Parts: sequence; C-alpha cells; structure tokens
Amino acid sequence: MNRVSGIFAPLSTPFDGSFDVDWQAFRENVEHYGQTDLAGLVVLGSNGEFALLEEDEKVRLIGESRSRLPSDKLVIAGTGRESLRETLTLTRRCAEAGADAALVLTPSYYKTDMDEKALERFYLDVADQSPLPVILYNMPRNTGVNITAPLCCRLSSHPNIVGIKDSSANIVQITEILAGCDKDFSVIAGSGSFLLATLILGGHGGTMAVANVVPQLCTRLYDAFLSGDIEQARKLQFDIMEINAAVTSRFGIGGMKAAMDMVGYCGGVPRPPILPATEEVKGQIAAIFGRLGIKTS
Amino acid sequence: MNRVSGIFAPLSTPFDGSFDVDWQAFRENVEHYGQTDLAGLVVLGSNGEFALLEEDEKVRLIGESRSRLPSDKLVIAGTGRESLRETLTLTRRCAEAGADAALVLTPSYYKTDMDEKALERFYLDVADQSPLPVILYNMPRNTGVNITAPLCCRLSSHPNIVGIKDSSANIVQITEILAGCDKDFSVIAGSGSFLLATLILGGHGGTMAVANVVPQLCTRLYDAFLSGDIEQARKLQFDIMEINAAVTSRFGIGGMKAAMDMVGYCGGVPRPPILPATEEVKGQIAAIFGRLGIKTS
Amino acid sequence: MNRVSGIFAPLSTPFDGSFDVDWQAFRENVEHYGQTDLAGLVVLGSNGEFALLEEDEKVRLIGESRSRLPSDKLVIAGTGRESLRETLTLTRRCAEAGADAALVLTPSYYKTDMDEKALERFYLDVADQSPLPVILYNMPRNTGVNITAPLCCRLSSHPNIVGIKDSSANIVQITEILAGCDKDFSVIAGSGSFLLATLILGGHGGTMAVANVVPQLCTRLYDAFLSGDIEQARKLQFDIMEINAAVTSRFGIGGMKAAMDMVGYCGGVPRPPILPATEEVKGQIAAIFGRLGIKTS
Amino acid sequence: MNRVSGIFAPLSTPFDGSFDVDWQAFRENVEHYGQTDLAGLVVLGSNGEFALLEEDEKVRLIGESRSRLPSDKLVIAGTGRESLRETLTLTRRCAEAGADAALVLTPSYYKTDMDEKALERFYLDVADQSPLPVILYNMPRNTGVNITAPLCCRLSSHPNIVGIKDSSANIVQITEILAGCDKDFSVIAGSGSFLLATLILGGHGGTMAVANVVPQLCTRLYDAFLSGDIEQARKLQFDIMEINAAVTSRFGIGGMKAAMDMVGYCGGVPRPPILPATEEVKGQIAAIFGRLGIKTS
Repeated sequence: MNRVSGIFAPLSTPFDGSFDVDWQAFRENVEHYGQTDLAGLVVLGSNGEFALLEEDEKVRLIGESRSRLPSDKLVIAGTGRESLRETLTLTRRCAEAGADAALVLTPSYYKTDMDEKALERFYLDVADQSPLPVILYNMPRNTGVNITAPLCCRLSSHPNIVGIKDSSANIVQITEILAGCDKDFSVIAGSGSFLLATLILGGHGGTMAVANVVPQLCTRLYDAFLSGDIEQARKLQFDIMEINAAVTSRFGIGGMKAAMDMVGYCGGVPRPPILPATEEVKGQIAAIFGRLGIKTS
Repeated sequence: MNRVSGIFAPLSTPFDGSFDVDWQAFRENVEHYGQTDLAGLVVLGSNGEFALLEEDEKVRLIGESRSRLPSDKLVIAGTGRESLRETLTLTRRCAEAGADAALVLTPSYYKTDMDEKALERFYLDVADQSPLPVILYNMPRNTGVNITAPLCCRLSSHPNIVGIKDSSANIVQITEILAGCDKDFSVIAGSGSFLLATLILGGHGGTMAVANVVPQLCTRLYDAFLSGDIEQARKLQFDIMEINAAVTSRFGIGGMKAAMDMVGYCGGVPRPPILPATEEVKGQIAAIFGRLGIKTS
Repeated sequence: MNRVSGIFAPLSTPFDGSFDVDWQAFRENVEHYGQTDLAGLVVLGSNGEFALLEEDEKVRLIGESRSRLPSDKLVIAGTGRESLRETLTLTRRCAEAGADAALVLTPSYYKTDMDEKALERFYLDVADQSPLPVILYNMPRNTGVNITAPLCCRLSSHPNIVGIKDSSANIVQITEILAGCDKDFSVIAGSGSFLLATLILGGHGGTMAVANVVPQLCTRLYDAFLSGDIEQARKLQFDIMEINAAVTSRFGIGGMKAAMDMVGYCGGVPRPPILPATEEVKGQIAAIFGRLGIKTS
Repeated sequence: MNRVSGIFAPLSTPFDGSFDVDWQAFRENVEHYGQTDLAGLVVLGSNGEFALLEEDEKVRLIGESRSRLPSDKLVIAGTGRESLRETLTLTRRCAEAGADAALVLTPSYYKTDMDEKALERFYLDVADQSPLPVILYNMPRNTGVNITAPLCCRLSSHPNIVGIKDSSANIVQITEILAGCDKDFSVIAGSGSFLLATLILGGHGGTMAVANVVPQLCTRLYDAFLSGDIEQARKLQFDIMEINAAVTSRFGIGGMKAAMDMVGYCGGVPRPPILPATEEVKGQIAAIFGRLGIKTS
C-alpha cells in the first residue's frame, strides 16, 4: 500500500431533510476534495458520524468514495466496532468495497474490561485477520480509553499494523510513540490543533476535522514544514487554531457541517440526536472566517 | 404497566466456545431467576454485553426472556443506540417481542454534541414515538455523559418517561432527582453498592450486576428496608459491597461471569474483546464467597 | 475526649474591610452557635478559609472559640499543612489554645508523591506525635487526593486516630469505610448533601457548610433520623439540598458568607483572592431562602 | 530585566538527615549550575519543595542563590501563596533578597472560587503591587486550576506581567497562548517533555525538573533548535523523555533527588511527607542512565 503520510480529511457524511444519506452531495464532496492536495480521505471516521450509520450505508460510502477519488489518493475506512467479530466483518466488507486501509477505533463501552491486555489482544486479533493494513485509532476524548505509548510501540511491530491516528492531543504521548516506534510506522495527528507539534517530532501527517473545511490551509502548513519554512508553518498553524476549535470542541459536528456549507462543500444536517448549528453559532463561525479572510458563499 | 420497583437483575448473556449466544444456558438462567424474589430482569443492559450483540440476537433474547419468565415479573429491554432512528427501530422490535419497558441509554460517542439540549430532544423524541414506557439510563462511568438532576426532572414530566436507572453512584444527584420529581417517578439504583442509600432517600429499587450472582441477598436487603429493619438492611449492604466490587469495577464482565458460574448460574465466557477471568481472579472471587459463607459449586 | 458525633459547623472566619479578621464578629458567631444544638465547631476548616490565614491568626481563632463555646461542645481544629513539621507545630499550638481534636487534611500539592504509602506514613507520624486525637480529613474536590477505604481502615486502628471527615460525597467509599472500621471510629459526612445517606449506613454525624447558615435544619435532620422518623429526615434532607449547593459548589465561600449575613450571622467578606458574592448571587440565595420559608433580615 | 528565555532549572532544595535545609549542599548546587549554559534558576518552584518550606527559609534560599550565581543568570523566585497578602509579602521579601522576577502560582485550594474572574483579579492585584516582574505559573496537574489561553492573553497586556511558565503539557493551549500574545511575552515550557513542541510554536524556553539532572542535554536541545538543526533537536528530545518521566510523573520528587545524587549534584532526602526513593526506584533510574550513556558516580 501507499505510505500513510500527508494530510487527510475525515470525510463528513451529508444527510438530507429526512436524515438519509444525501448520496449526490457526498459524491460532490469527494470529487471536490479529489482536486486538492490532500493525501486521501478517512471515510467513516468520527466526523463522518460513523456511530450513527448502518453497516450497509457504511460499505456503500466506501465504494462511492473509492470510485470517485483519484487512485493516488488513499481511502481509509473507519471499521472499529465494539465487538471483534463485527469489526472484522465490517473490515472485510470495506476491503471488498475498495478501501486501502482500516482505521480501527478502540472498543470503549466496557472501559473496566478494556485494560492494556484486552486492547492488545483485540488489535492483534484484528491485524491477524484483516485483509487491510490496520491503523490504530486513539480518540480518548470520545471513548475514555487511551492507547498508551508502550502499547502502541508493542503493536507497531505487527506487520499488518502500519500506523496510529492519535487524537489525544497529548504531545508527550505522541513524542514517546515517535521515540519508541520504527520511523516508518505512521504517526498521524488526529486534530489540526497539534499538527505542527506532531510534525516537528517526526510525525507523518494529520487527519483532522478542519481539513473538511479548509483543506488547502492544512496542506500548505504540511508543505511549509516539509520545505523547512518554520515561520510560515507556524503562521498557518496559528491561523487554523480558531477554525479548528469551532469545528471540534466548541461547536461540534453541527458546527463543522455549517462551516462546510459556508465555504462551498455540502455539509447538510447531522443525523439525530446530534443537533444542527444554531443561527448564533453560524454567525460566530462566519465571524471567524471573516477575521481570517476566508471567502464564504 | 406494572410499577417499576424492587430488585432487577441486569441479565448476563452467556456465550459458547465459538462466542455465539448459548441459548440453552440463557433459558436456564431466566427460569432460575424466575424462581427468586426479583421484580424482573433487565435484558440487553450493560452487563448483558448489549454493545457486543447484533440486533437480531437482541430481539430474540427479549422473546426468550419474556416467554420463560413468570408474567408478574417485568422484562425491561435495553434499547439505546447512538442514533435516534436505530433506537426507535430496536425499541419497536423489542416491544413486539414482549418487552414491558425500554431502558434507553444516553447516546455518548459525540460527547461534545450531547449537551443538555441534545439529550433532552433525544429523550423527548424517543418517548413520543416509543410503544413502550421509557426508563432513562444514566451510566456515566461507561459513557462519559451524565443526565443531570434538572434534566431528569424536566423529562420526568413526559407521560411516557416513567423512571431512571442511575448508575452514577452520585448520591447527591440521586437525592436531587428524588427531591425534584414526582413520587411515582421510579428512581432505580444502578449498582448494588449504593442501594440502601438510594432507598432511604425514597428510591424505588435497584438494577445491579450483583443481583446476577446473589439475587437473594439483594432482595433481602430491599425487604429489610421496607419492613423498617435498618440494622439488618445495613448488615446486608455491607455484605454485598465486596461481591459487588468484584463483579463490577474490580474484575469487570469476566469477573461477573466467573462468579455466576461458581454459584450455579451459567456465566460462560465474554464475547471478545472482553477477556474471561483469569484463574487468579477466580481464586480471589472464591475467597470473597468463602469469607461471606456463600456456597459455591 | 467526647465522642465525635452529631452535627458540627465548619466555622466561617469573618474579615473586615481591610481583610483583617473581625474578632468581634467572630466571637458573636461563636456565641450564637453555642446556643444551638450543634455538637461543636470545626475551626480552621476549608470554610474557615484556613488556607488564607496566618499561623498566629489560626491559634488565636482556636483560643477565642474555646473560651466562648459551652464546654460540652467540641472545638475541632483544622491543623493540616503541606509539611509534617508544620502540621505538628500547628497541632501543638492549637492544643495549647484549647482545641479538643485535630482535623488533619491530606497534604496534596505533591500529588504524585502522595501515594497511599506516603499518606499512611504521614498520618501515623502525626498521630504518634499529636497531643490531640486526630481526625482524618478527606477533601478530594479541593485537594485532588483521596483517602481510600482500605487506607482509612488501616489508619483507624491507631489509638490516636479517632475518625474521618469525608467530604468526597462518594457514598460507596463511605459505606466501605463504615463496613471496614470499628463501630466507634467516627465517620462524619463532610457536606450536608449526603448526611442522611451517611447516617443510614452507620455514620456518626456531619460537618457541613450549610450548618453555618441553618444549623437548626441540620440538627433536626440528625435528630429525626436518630428517633427513627425516616420520612421527616428525608424531607429535611430535601430541604437543605439547594441551600447546601448554593453555599458550596454553586456560589462558593462568597456565597456562604452572603447567606450567613442574610440570616443573622456575621459572614463578612472573603479574604482575597476569593471574591465576595455579587448582587446577582445574593438575589438567587435570597430566592432560595424565600422558597423554603427561611426568614432573612 | 533580562528577557526571560532559554533553559532554567527549577532548583531542588536539599535537606539533611533532620530534614533541615542543607545550606552547604544548596550552595554547591547553585555554583555547579552556574557553570552550565542555563539561563538561570527558578528557586522555590514545585521541584524546590516550596510548599514544604517556611517563609524565612524561602527568603534565605533566594539570597544564597543570587549571591552565588553569575550576574548574567536570572534568579526567578516562586512567590505564590494561597492569599493575596502573603503572596505580596513574600514577593517583596524575595525582591529585597535579590530575585529578578517572581513566578506566581495560581491560588488553588478554593477551586470553586478560583474562576477566571477571581484569577484575573488576583494576578492584576499582584502585578500592580509587585516590585518584581511577574511570570504566571500554570501547574494544573498539582493545582487542579488552569490559566486558560484567553485569560493569559488578557493578563499579558499588563506591563508588569512578562511571561508564563505553563506546565500543563497542553500543547493546544500553549499554541493558543503563543498565537494570541505579543511575541515578547515569554512562554516557557514547564516540563522537558514538551520543550521542542513549545519551541517550534514560538516558545521562549523551558523550566523543567530534568534540567536539575542533565542541564547540558536540555541546553543542547535548545541550542540545536535555535541553530535550525531539527534532527538533532528531535534526537535530544527523545533522549530526555525517559529521564524526564522518571524525575516527574513516575518517581516524583524522591526520584528526582536520587537522580541528582547519581550524577554529581546534591539531591539529599525530601522533606516529609514526601518519601525518599526506594532502592528499587534508584535501580530503575540507574538503568535509564545506563541506556542513555550518562555517567553516574
């Protein structure tokens, strides 16, 4: 497979007024992102509202993505489920639908049971049986479960575990992972708010909500860093901080979708129980775009 | 429907060596509990490994429970899903399969989005459309989301929301709920460790993992309190503390299942990624039973 | 010493406009509380702003309290400091000033270092050398450090450690402490919000901010429980919930002092950096008093 | 004053067998550090066990430091106390003893009261009256209180508030602070584990426990970054991760002092209630030094 590096958008899933997937809007978004410098798309990630999708919808979203994205861009499928058997079933179906890699979230409902030993067994079982290369997905803010640096380093020696998307924002942990794993184990920042910090420490890229909205700012930050222009990378990092907060911790999925609508992508409404952004929130997002000189429609 | 009060066991789901549901063992457990003083069973609760079950399995477990349990004992179905539409679909299917009430967990993956407003909208939508009376399910330890006392009190005025199972162990919050809701709104302790405290404050019963193992200790505690024998109720509360910890926070689902096997129920193995109890854990559980004079097989 | 049981007020320290101790107001408060059914006063507790007082002020506050309080009421001195040596020095000085017992807070700044072993060593050293009986003070909300039930039970066997004030609100932990310690080891609820729950489990009383404001509601709750009138105890518990929240988690020290001023005690202003209650907060507190029919001046 | 930038050691305070300050050892350490490339010393910081020192000891430690350190190296005094008045008194005394700046910790015992408004008022009061330039000290792990980025940015406009030592390890917050404050407002990493991440984002240096042990590794990292040698800076960052963890979160103050003893500084024992490192911990620290090729005595 292609090396997992660069900037990925964790693709949003647009819904129509009946809260069904708006396939036409989805396809337009994929084609739109296909023309950017993104390295690929994460489909069925947290920002894709994977937890609110049915399995058949998930598989079709992978197929639609793969067929509309240039072949040099990766399609990474979020295939984590609470049970091992459902994780494997979904991973196999996504592989058949054309996914290039599987991003596997930590099971998390049974936190007491998900100790380091159980997580290690789970990921080894997935990696042994998955037809796709596996990327660990660490998202403690949503799951309450953490993949520690020592666990990640042990798992990284499995030939079918190729990387980690770490959304913890814990830069100390990310540093320990980078210090302890082989250089070709991909370490991907899970949010735009700590992309530059991850890159300076040897990280390979980022998969971040803010790339659904302003992918070009994110890829320019990445390119500036690669070319050694630290000043420019820092400036871009500062620029995306506020948009990033608006589309994640501050206004959530509803905020991200409203922001997408403002800049020419199809955001649409979230699926209930997630609520759409209020007019007040939309006004605040518009004000942020205004301050940064980002053109809205 | 019958009033929701008394002691309920959050029924475990036994799996066989291939991790399929062991239907025969499940039926035996239901019949076994049917002969106790339990007020009913919560099927598809956290301890039933609901998060690891497929929808068809869930519906069949409800049917099997209802048909084997005496008609004066309630079958409460855990029907919460992350999405509203899947929650409603499962609730309807469980109603058709014979459930008496629906226990609806807070959606939790999108924590940032699950603010009080979104939770209120979700529960009102569920209650409006559910064919079954709705019991709120608050389980912050597993979900990271909390139903506050003010939210609970507002929701309690909906005619189809009849109670809350609060597993928070937050006795201050439980007191505020009892102080603020009508007396016939059922407040059920979600763990055996704070049953007596809940009862003294006016609570209506408990649904607790430890009732899968020693239902008679739990119902005796409840009866002692009702009859005004505080000393005896306190003694029983002290007795169940250590078993309760062993089958919840200390040894998890694997520990609970091992404990069930020791006292004559069919525990079986957990479904992966949950690991079974180790021999060392089993020894510690046996020692607790020994100290309390509970006969093991 | 007298057995530590019943209701205690954690005495507030009034300051004047220059933020010096208002000794006259302090003496009036002590005399005022001396006429209630309180079992005694905790002087230099959290609500006494002990952390903002100098050592000489602390010792004088003990002396003033002891000399003005009826001899059948206890004066318990908060003598915890971060260092062992300063804790012992202050304990000795408070003993000379007339204190009946020392309430010793967990050292907490060095959380990493304050593991169970260090806390045990600390309390044994204090108990060995203290001229006063020692009461453990567990206040995790303010300290971030917790005295676990097993640690408490081990410490309770020291002849000079006579009780614990547990402000954790963790009723499971309090139950484990009561189940595991001798019956004459005093377990005192550290807040009015879980007094009844503590009593039903065998606890010995409470030391709570709300007793600075409405001591008579608190002692009536205690008496109702002792006399077996559960209904009345529950009603009083419900009544004090909202006042309790207002003078602790909701409006803090400033709120408590404002509430005291409204009902005839001398609250005064907090010492900076604590801010006094705003007019808006005072209005909300007055409204709570109004709803409960408590006369304000 | 000199600009606050570069690497600072948060000076340890050595105690003798009676737990008194070992002045001779202290002086030797200061002179020893004076010969390194450190930009200065933070005296009375968390690692200096400030919370266990008496005020007279504190002032003398400042005087001893200033008189033995080359004049081009800064002496920054930790002067935060819970009360405003004691903070100001100590700051004035430390100024007279020769300190160059005051590092002022957030008051933290009254967490409910220490909202953003109270913290802002506190720091403005300190800054208005302090004879020394003020550096904010954010240490949420020990205090449970956080200086948010918006609060920091507002405070940074006060002419007598010149910087922040942020020990939060929250790189997102540090980025927001750097994005929102003037470039000459000093932002200092409070731990060696996120020094490089802070520097790439425009930070001005670090004050970190690990600099008490291996100051030369820390200053070399800083110099490598300044000279544009990212590869070398990253390698040094990786090297110090494990030592850093050992002398902070993993083994605490006792571990740090044992590590100092091993490499030629005078660590000595901690003051009770902090316990000294066990032989087992010392062995683990020695093993880390061995792996990194650091010579121990």
